[in-house]
Amino acid sequence: MHKYDVLIIGSGPGGEKAALQAAKLNRRVAIIERSPFIGGAGIQTGTLPSKTLREAALYLSAFRQRAIYGMECSVSKGVTLRELMHRKESVVHSQMEVIKGHFAKNDIDLIHGDASFKDEHTLLVRQEGTVQEYSGDIIVIAVGSRPSRPASVPFEKGNIYDSDGIIDIDRIPRTMTVLGGGVIGCEYACIFACLGVSVTLVDRNRRLLRFLDEEIIQSLSYWMRQSGITLKLGEEMDSIEDEGNGRIVTRLKSGKTVISETLLYTMGRVGNTDSLNLEAIGITPVERGFITVNQSFQTAIPHIYAVGDVIGFPSLAATSMEQGRRAMCHALGGGEVEEICEWTSHIPYGVYAIPEISMVGETEESLTGKGVPFEVGVASFSEVARGRIIGDIYGMLKLIFHRESRLLLGVHIIGERATEIIHIGQAVLSYGGTIDYFINNVFNYPTLSDAYKVAALNGINRL
Amino acid sequence: MHKYDVLIIGSGPGGEKAALQAAKLNRRVAIIERSPFIGGAGIQTGTLPSKTLREAALYLSAFRQRAIYGMECSVSKGVTLRELMHRKESVVHSQMEVIKGHFAKNDIDLIHGDASFKDEHTLLVRQEGTVQEYSGDIIVIAVGSRPSRPASVPFEKGNIYDSDGIIDIDRIPRTMTVLGGGVIGCEYACIFACLGVSVTLVDRNRRLLRFLDEEIIQSLSYWMRQSGITLKLGEEMDSIEDEGNGRIVTRLKSGKTVISETLLYTMGRVGNTDSLNLEAIGITPVERGFITVNQSFQTAIPHIYAVGDVIGFPSLAATSMEQGRRAMCHALGGGEVEEICEWTSHIPYGVYAIPEISMVGETEESLTGKGVPFEVGVASFSEVARGRIIGDIYGMLKLIFHRESRLLLGVHIIGERATEIIHIGQAVLSYGGTIDYFINNVFNYPTLSDAYKVAALNGINRL
Repeated sequence: MHKYDVLIIGSGPGGEKAALQAAKLNRRVAIIERSPFIGGAGIQTGTLPSKTLREAALYLSAFRQRAIYGMECSVSKGVTLRELMHRKESVVHSQMEVIKGHFAKNDIDLIHGDASFKDEHTLLVRQEGTVQEYSGDIIVIAVGSRPSRPASVPFEKGNIYDSDGIIDIDRIPRTMTVLGGGVIGCEYACIFACLGVSVTLVDRNRRLLRFLDEEIIQSLSYWMRQSGITLKLGEEMDSIEDEGNGRIVTRLKSGKTVISETLLYTMGRVGNTDSLNLEAIGITPVERGFITVNQSFQTAIPHIYAVGDVIGFPSLAATSMEQGRRAMCHALGGGEVEEICEWTSHIPYGVYAIPEISMVGETEESLTGKGVPFEVGVASFSEVARGRIIGDIYGMLKLIFHRESRLLLGVHIIGERATEIIHIGQAVLSYGGTIDYFINNVFNYPTLSDAYKVAALNGINRL
Repeated sequence: MHKYDVLIIGSGPGGEKAALQAAKLNRRVAIIERSPFIGGAGIQTGTLPSKTLREAALYLSAFRQRAIYGMECSVSKGVTLRELMHRKESVVHSQMEVIKGHFAKNDIDLIHGDASFKDEHTLLVRQEGTVQEYSGDIIVIAVGSRPSRPASVPFEKGNIYDSDGIIDIDRIPRTMTVLGGGVIGCEYACIFACLGVSVTLVDRNRRLLRFLDEEIIQSLSYWMRQSGITLKLGEEMDSIEDEGNGRIVTRLKSGKTVISETLLYTMGRVGNTDSLNLEAIGITPVERGFITVNQSFQTAIPHIYAVGDVIGFPSLAATSMEQGRRAMCHALGGGEVEEICEWTSHIPYGVYAIPEISMVGETEESLTGKGVPFEVGVASFSEVARGRIIGDIYGMLKLIFHRESRLLLGVHIIGERATEIIHIGQAVLSYGGTIDYFINNVFNYPTLSDAYKVAALNGINRL
């Protein structure tokens, strides 16, 4: 029996940061990882690989657009996506090394094997035929999720992918149907459209990414259509048939039919809880293997926490990291610890569609619901010099602020570098600043950040 | 005689913002501009055109590098820089429209003509043979500067450019000597190196851009050399001879000789004060036409202000804008006004070299001089996932903070998007934050902004 203060199942973003936080609070920590590779979906199958593919796609599209610069460009015949993604291996490898370095430096033990609960404080870890027992005062479930693969979808013929498999697609198809308009569906639809693929995106909701600002999403929808994506919203899938010869027929309940060479199925994910033997401790996952937690990320058993994709929305790497950190601050807390772990209440959301989207703070809808009197200030990137220079005509930045106190309440950005410059507004929000900050601030010229000032001036003129 | 509360000479960034601030404080304002086009060096000859050329150069270099993506690219024969800069006209035009819109909306009169002082409150404006008199309670000199063109430099043969002329160069030369390692010299050296030109940069100082952090500049120097630029530092020019046939011989005082096809002379600028008839009001420019002002941007005559390039360092568009605004807050001040004009003490510097550089707050050298006990935290962009993804291996972010209070004191960044993400640190600095902000903050993943957290952790580990 190996004893630890904290046992963490899963080495993805949530597990990693939970481990680091616990180690910083001087606890003995072990992470159990069933894959030979660390990092989970964040590093191995999801975030990093898809962002690397996105970067490759942006280069390709740049090549097309910049014919205006008098250049002649052609993609060599036979180039595979795998070649385009040559950087992926180095990115993944270097990030694994970074994380391993953190583990080593903080004396966090990394154990490879399949974990399952024996009791509330004991995990069994199976590895190459042997079983070892590990006990922990605190246990963190950070096992992540995987794409759901319903039996009604004929994945077996090879032209229908889930979001794990799509990253290994070996050629750029002519047409693709994307089923599901969540973050993953939207990001891949944009990436493949950018690569010249004719994409049809189907979602049962009439609006994409409902957690984001409505105006931003309308803008995204517009630009997705401009890039050649057909949006079929408010439509439900009825059946999928792979007829072979590059002909996949997707029938919708409305009677419509979508035909494409490939299909990406991103409708939902499943929590990786099946092999954890949760029955042994009396925890029952809600639908599709997800675990319910309270605001402190505790499961029904107070010393067992769950963080990251296994607890569902929003399933973003940055958020999972923060959940891991907060869970450990709660578990190992105390006066001093609370101070160390002072919470940022303003977590940004970043969606790596093309263009990028990011938000922090409140939306107009949430404030209207709460009856807070607010005003907005909007700037188009085309109003700022750098937007013109880089040709970002779709960019937009929206500030939401209190009509009376002028306190900043939310920031919503679509456009190039949105996921970076959102952090300027996030800092002002965190310090309880007003939109006057942006009016008085000096921004480098030319920058996209300058849009904060233009939006603030726009907002003040509405008062 | 036309009467105004405020007369402003020059419609560049400094004059523009002075006018807007005065108009917002309900003053009657006129701007006198001698060019048929508004915007000064910021829009017409300097900032915007050079940043547009920089963007074109980055595309071209991207094309070369990204051969790794399996693409074949070639610049069509006969492509001129003018064609590469097709976007310049639209950028310049749209920015002129933006400024004109501001003028119209704020009832600012725009008068085209050459201004000169008649007396301390009266300007004569010559326009197409007529002379009109304008009087103002407050006068702002925002006439900018121009490249100095000493008689010893043979500009007349056409292969030797100053920083105004270089933007109209009609072909990409094979070799170029850049004389002067200030902001303009460094930016153009990087741009032309990026376009494949073999560049030699000569400066009399042993270090480039001495107002920036030494470590950042060493990094810049390294990457300039990596991109093929030969740096000849601590060298003074002795003579320049244009022998014709694409052979310009630059002799240095050390006895060395540099031979190149073209030469860019960026050694110093001259204030545009010669035609202002400053003698009439008893103001004598210091050397090279520059005007001395106090901390409130007042000249020797209290109601006459000077802002922007005409007062010298740092001669950056963003800084000139802020000077214009502050001058008017001072001139038209009062309790309420001071509140409106609450000063940001943290003005960023942005240098659009390749890679970009930006800083805000203190440098290590300034703090050492003041005897402030500080510590630094450093992150390489290669340590953050997005740095790896976009291949920004040269990026670096340095935080300087107080050893005891942990207050953030300065931020120094080199690398892609430096001029944007500096504003995150600037906000924290403005609110008097500590480096704990970055440790507790949630950054989108993957972003370059994440380097703030890595640098903060690095810094704390040194305590």
